Amino acid sequence: MAKPKKTPRPKPVPPRGFRDYFGAEVTQRKAMLDAIAEVYALYGFEALESSAVETVEALGKFLPDVDRPNEGVFAWQEEPEENGPWLALRYDLTAPLARVYAEHRNTLPTPYRRYAMGPVWRNEKPGPGRFRQFYQCDADTVGTASVAADAEICAMLADVLERVGIARGDYVVRINNRKVLNGVMEVAGLAGDDRAEARGIVLRAIDKLDRLGSDGVRALLGEGRKDESGDFTEGAGLSNAQAEVIMKFVNAYSEVDSALAREAVDAEEFNHEYSERLHAARDAASPVFRDQWTERSSDRALWNTKMLRHLQVLVSDSDVGSEGVRELTDIKELLDAQGYGPDRIVIDPSVVRGLGYYTGPVYEAELTFEILDEKGRPRQFGSVAGGGRYDDLVTRFTGQQVPATGVSVGVDRLLAALTAKGKLQAEAPGPVVVTVMDRDRMADYQSICATLRQAGIRAEVYLGNPRNFGNQLKYADKRGSPAAIIQGSDEAARGVVQVKDLILGAKLAEQATVEEWKENPSQVEVPLDGLVDHLKRLLA
Amino acid sequence: MAKPKKTPRPKPVPPRGFRDYFGAEVTQRKAMLDAIAEVYALYGFEALESSAVETVEALGKFLPDVDRPNEGVFAWQEEPEENGPWLALRYDLTAPLARVYAEHRNTLPTPYRRYAMGPVWRNEKPGPGRFRQFYQCDADTVGTASVAADAEICAMLADVLERVGIARGDYVVRINNRKVLNGVMEVAGLAGDDRAEARGIVLRAIDKLDRLGSDGVRALLGEGRKDESGDFTEGAGLSNAQAEVIMKFVNAYSEVDSALAREAVDAEEFNHEYSERLHAARDAASPVFRDQWTERSSDRALWNTKMLRHLQVLVSDSDVGSEGVRELTDIKELLDAQGYGPDRIVIDPSVVRGLGYYTGPVYEAELTFEILDEKGRPRQFGSVAGGGRYDDLVTRFTGQQVPATGVSVGVDRLLAALTAKGKLQAEAPGPVVVTVMDRDRMADYQSICATLRQAGIRAEVYLGNPRNFGNQLKYADKRGSPAAIIQGSDEAARGVVQVKDLILGAKLAEQATVEEWKENPSQVEVPLDGLVDHLKRLLA
Repeated sequence: MAKPKKTPRPKPVPPRGFRDYFGAEVTQRKAMLDAIAEVYALYGFEALESSAVETVEALGKFLPDVDRPNEGVFAWQEEPEENGPWLALRYDLTAPLARVYAEHRNTLPTPYRRYAMGPVWRNEKPGPGRFRQFYQCDADTVGTASVAADAEICAMLADVLERVGIARGDYVVRINNRKVLNGVMEVAGLAGDDRAEARGIVLRAIDKLDRLGSDGVRALLGEGRKDESGDFTEGAGLSNAQAEVIMKFVNAYSEVDSALAREAVDAEEFNHEYSERLHAARDAASPVFRDQWTERSSDRALWNTKMLRHLQVLVSDSDVGSEGVRELTDIKELLDAQGYGPDRIVIDPSVVRGLGYYTGPVYEAELTFEILDEKGRPRQFGSVAGGGRYDDLVTRFTGQQVPATGVSVGVDRLLAALTAKGKLQAEAPGPVVVTVMDRDRMADYQSICATLRQAGIRAEVYLGNPRNFGNQLKYADKRGSPAAIIQGSDEAARGVVQVKDLILGAKLAEQATVEEWKENPSQVEVPLDGLVDHLKRLLA
Repeated sequence: MAKPKKTPRPKPVPPRGFRDYFGAEVTQRKAMLDAIAEVYALYGFEALESSAVETVEALGKFLPDVDRPNEGVFAWQEEPEENGPWLALRYDLTAPLARVYAEHRNTLPTPYRRYAMGPVWRNEKPGPGRFRQFYQCDADTVGTASVAADAEICAMLADVLERVGIARGDYVVRINNRKVLNGVMEVAGLAGDDRAEARGIVLRAIDKLDRLGSDGVRALLGEGRKDESGDFTEGAGLSNAQAEVIMKFVNAYSEVDSALAREAVDAEEFNHEYSERLHAARDAASPVFRDQWTERSSDRALWNTKMLRHLQVLVSDSDVGSEGVRELTDIKELLDAQGYGPDRIVIDPSVVRGLGYYTGPVYEAELTFEILDEKGRPRQFGSVAGGGRYDDLVTRFTGQQVPATGVSVGVDRLLAALTAKGKLQAEAPGPVVVTVMDRDRMADYQSICATLRQAGIRAEVYLGNPRNFGNQLKYADKRGSPAAIIQGSDEAARGVVQVKDLILGAKLAEQATVEEWKENPSQVEVPLDGLVDHLKRLLA
């Protein structure tokens, strides 16, 4: 093992873009993954753990003429002398699902509901908070075209968020359907292969709504748009009538929003005027009147119904568009029946995630509370999960289309959100530290420790050099220990120990008066056979 | 995405030597890792999850003149055009610990107790049951030379085994010390650099005890040995006196074993003769007589004491050997004080794991029950965990020696052992399947399902094509469902469901008479609002 002196020492650092996770970082993420897996399992999803390494051929992201398939993935060639296969680390959990499903499709149940969680790797330029290894946590249903599968995943997504600690009202699952957009394009006369270029311009324009506003998008649908710098972006060249159709889609959210706001005002007047009659009617349980009341008074409860009506009017001349609205209506009704109303699930045509990939319903979970960004400005936390329906899962392998729908939860973003909401402890409590007063009585200290552990109390003996007792207490501090146990020979002879309450001690050291010190001693003497009970009270 | 027609379809298979894990395979391993992590944490160990990818330089297994560092690991070069660094998948969890500890040594507590669990990768020839990705599950204490750290890990190892379901008596943790062997070599006159070759022959001979027996080893210590085929293996050329020393070490286990067996016979006679006096004396609590009785009657309780005495006599002329025995004595006493006696912990000089790497105590957990091998022959299950003390953890990085000791648990072997003992369920129970009798009432079925989930019952709606009801029940069978829920329009109108007990149904189908079928109907009608209670009873 001896090396020539000249070899410089290796640097103890992980590769660029990789990092390590310590203590609570590991256990908090694990607790979150466990909680999510519990919900996935409750919905009937089965665990799958595929290998981290796949053949590049099976991952299928690369063209045969690329010499070294390292764009976006970490790849290497087996036995290059013998022209072995190229292998790569998985870049997501869907490509491996496709390979596994194609391989085992004759023995897996149909539909196949599976969940998977674990690291994936991306050979990309790392940036602040952007790592080349990170966790994904997916659930997919393979082998059914029924939108009941999509609805189920949206309900599950809501359950997942509440299960990990996001309160109802702090999130919303937004749903759209690729087919509705296709229908809008058709109604606007933009269907067909020869209009692909115009569709592209329209799609990019829609995607810029946030940044350019309604007028900016409208300009891009027509002649084009000059920005502040004077640069001109060529438009799609649509007629006014065509552009009108697209804009009704683009503005669907705000139109339904203001319609509901108007109705809410009406409803308030209505309620005020008729409140007497209303209560009488509710008591009499007159269904007609009750429905009327509900429709008028609950401003958001009808959001989804109104939005679906708005979209249906918009695409009524398109078969695919109408089918899309019908699917969304089915999803809404399935979710309503399970109690997932518009306080959690919102039909929202502005959801446009990866439309090139998805073929039907798409969905996204967004956290609606504000956090402060790095410059102290409030901003919405944003998306933490998303997914949708895709039909080409195994086509590459088998030539057959297999419908599938699935979601991916961004575990690290969700952890960041919970931290921002103060819902995660920064550190898990450390072990009780049994200090070493007398090196020769190590066996006694170990025995005390064993007793604590048998009672389920996390505990350890100080194993550093015991000479300097101050160092032992500093160690206990560093470990976040709730208490230190001290037993000199005098205490041993009397069958007692000293218990130093390190949490109380730290508090007292910060703010206590001399009187408080005296009244709340952070160190007490406890009989050895009462130690477990004492610590259990202290740790409670 | 369209490909030219000529491209052959990719094969949906994992790379050679990799595999996927489904359902219970995933959850059983996870449950085991969780249980082990719980014990590790109880002992004060902190979680560490290092990156799966390391620089080859930091892994440090390779010589600078090897062009492509792919021996034993999966490695690739970043940006080969720009001569980027070589990266590799970690091959164990110790090399990353060394890198992490060297990197963070100034901020980590000393000693640093850490546990780690996760996949590691070996670029080796795969074989039956030998995969190129597998799990390791390690605990190490870094930064203390105290053998209390070794003792602690041995106790923890015993706790781990019992926690995952290995009964006391079905395992033993065997401990040895590299220094004792060094002492034996010294006493035999084999110390010093010039005797390295002879020591090598002796070590290899000792390691063959199982296969060659005592006489075979003895021959290799002297002139050499001719095997059955007539091939001659050159011996170490030791004198009779030298060989005698080594043989006392080689035969230590059997010598102590027979000594104890003789004493056990004596003790039985003694007990028989003096049983009257014995009881009287025990009642009188005469300490002298009681000790005598204990020593004579408990055959195994004194194993470790006797073995340490045997070893001490053997190496009394060697400082390092005596130190080794002293360390083992300390470990034994620390463990005794915590109640880990020779029924769980055995001093055993035949433990010779990786002696080139370890520098002090070494330990190994062995399962002592027999299983049948692939040919139906009984054999001991063998080792499931091992480790020891090593002092060169971070020397490569910092030039300093940092003492460390640690253990690695073979999770897959442990799972195999529990399966062999019938302690693992082959399959986790599947979800309750709500069947679809009437496609239009999907929302009702989803609502039933949501109610079950809210009660914590794993449940799903059948999402395949509902036309053929038989297929729905076949699906439920494949999923291992305990029950299927059936509700046609008639049942819906009456507010009831049919519950088909699939476990009872399968049992009846196998063995029931017509009378039993009638008495134990596997399908019963249940009011909808009593479904949760009914299923909870059925699943209990």
